[in-house]
Amino acid sequence: MNIILASTSTLFGGAYLEYLKEELIKLYEGVDEIIFIPFARPGGISHDEYTAKARSFFETIHIKIRGLHEFENKSEALDQAKGYFTGGGNTFLLVKTLHEEGLMQALKQNVEVGKPYLGCSAGSNIGGQNMKTTNDMPIVYPPSFDCMGLVPFNLNPHYLDPNPELKHNGETRETRILEFLTQNDLKVVGLREGNWIRRKGDAITVEGSELTRIFEKGKEPYEIESGSELY
Amino acid sequence: MNIILASTSTLFGGAYLEYLKEELIKLYEGVDEIIFIPFARPGGISHDEYTAKARSFFETIHIKIRGLHEFENKSEALDQAKGYFTGGGNTFLLVKTLHEEGLMQALKQNVEVGKPYLGCSAGSNIGGQNMKTTNDMPIVYPPSFDCMGLVPFNLNPHYLDPNPELKHNGETRETRILEFLTQNDLKVVGLREGNWIRRKGDAITVEGSELTRIFEKGKEPYEIESGSELY
Repeated sequence: MNIILASTSTLFGGAYLEYLKEELIKLYEGVDEIIFIPFARPGGISHDEYTAKARSFFETIHIKIRGLHEFENKSEALDQAKGYFTGGGNTFLLVKTLHEEGLMQALKQNVEVGKPYLGCSAGSNIGGQNMKTTNDMPIVYPPSFDCMGLVPFNLNPHYLDPNPELKHNGETRETRILEFLTQNDLKVVGLREGNWIRRKGDAITVEGSELTRIFEKGKEPYEIESGSELY
Repeated sequence: MNIILASTSTLFGGAYLEYLKEELIKLYEGVDEIIFIPFARPGGISHDEYTAKARSFFETIHIKIRGLHEFENKSEALDQAKGYFTGGGNTFLLVKTLHEEGLMQALKQNVEVGKPYLGCSAGSNIGGQNMKTTNDMPIVYPPSFDCMGLVPFNLNPHYLDPNPELKHNGETRETRILEFLTQNDLKVVGLREGNWIRRKGDAITVEGSELTRIFEKGKEPYEIESGSELY
């Protein structure tokens, strides 16, 4: 496999995908056109608008973009594509659309044979085993929470440390992930903004500017450095 | 109906249910025993532990507590009870358990004939039309997101205003609720900590120390004062 699962598309104060530019040139080496999967629709923007946003970045690295929504036969379009990018937004909407149109499995099969895949945020969640560690609001009901399982764990994108100054009794991110572990025995990678998971063949590492927080059942959460292998 | 749907059980720096004490004495007037529904299991604590926590508060207002998990026939237990309290925690876990055991409908029917009901956080979410505006992580997959619909809208408990100082690109609460409205045409009541919804007969008001933020499809979000009626 040849994939990047990034915490976020955009760093605070940065431009869309800018911080990943050098990585994306390597990821998509030899590929001049990819399919963009716009179904997560951040803020409810249209598939066309979202695809245009992705296109404006990928033009700068000379890669053409087609939106998956443009194709009559989407499964065939996935089979014929040379690479993929799934943008962020609402994971429930993304997973519902992919399952209902029978595309989760088709995408998985194509990525597993080595075609390059980039996910950001919701697009990274679907690279995990399931979407049970998303931060998103359940605005629609998907037929299943199962995802592609491109890595043998789950991700929590936009991982956020507790704010000790907040006078608020909603759960912290860590509390939520520990609740997940009371119901599921599956590693969760808390991916801070600025970090991404890189899988190349069988080697899976975490990359980027921040430490990464790992949650496992029956263990205290712990931090690993950029470049560490993940299993 | 005679219900309270509260944003939170506990205010920052306060004790469990303390800020609601006078309201709860009125809600449960003439009732000396209620059933506690512990299925949301905050932090994964056991049903027994959670019930003991509720009991320690309700002792101070002379109301006995039985945990719903203690009954062999839970549906019958709901029918025979004089009142209810559903505690907070994980809404997915709560809704999954209630649906799988056939209890959502049984609880609804009993509350609709006028038996007093208190919900906090997840326990308030299930008073809404559905759980699609919960803040919780989808740690388990419920067979449906539908809830009791004790009020003709949805709630967002622990409603939190955006923090302008946060250098983070995760969605704000407002962004998430506006995404919900792109997919659903249903009013959402953003209930800040310190506030609760009171329904007595057909009159529904919002009460408490804070303004309440209302979200409706096709309108700018707006604020209403404590004591305002909700439709």
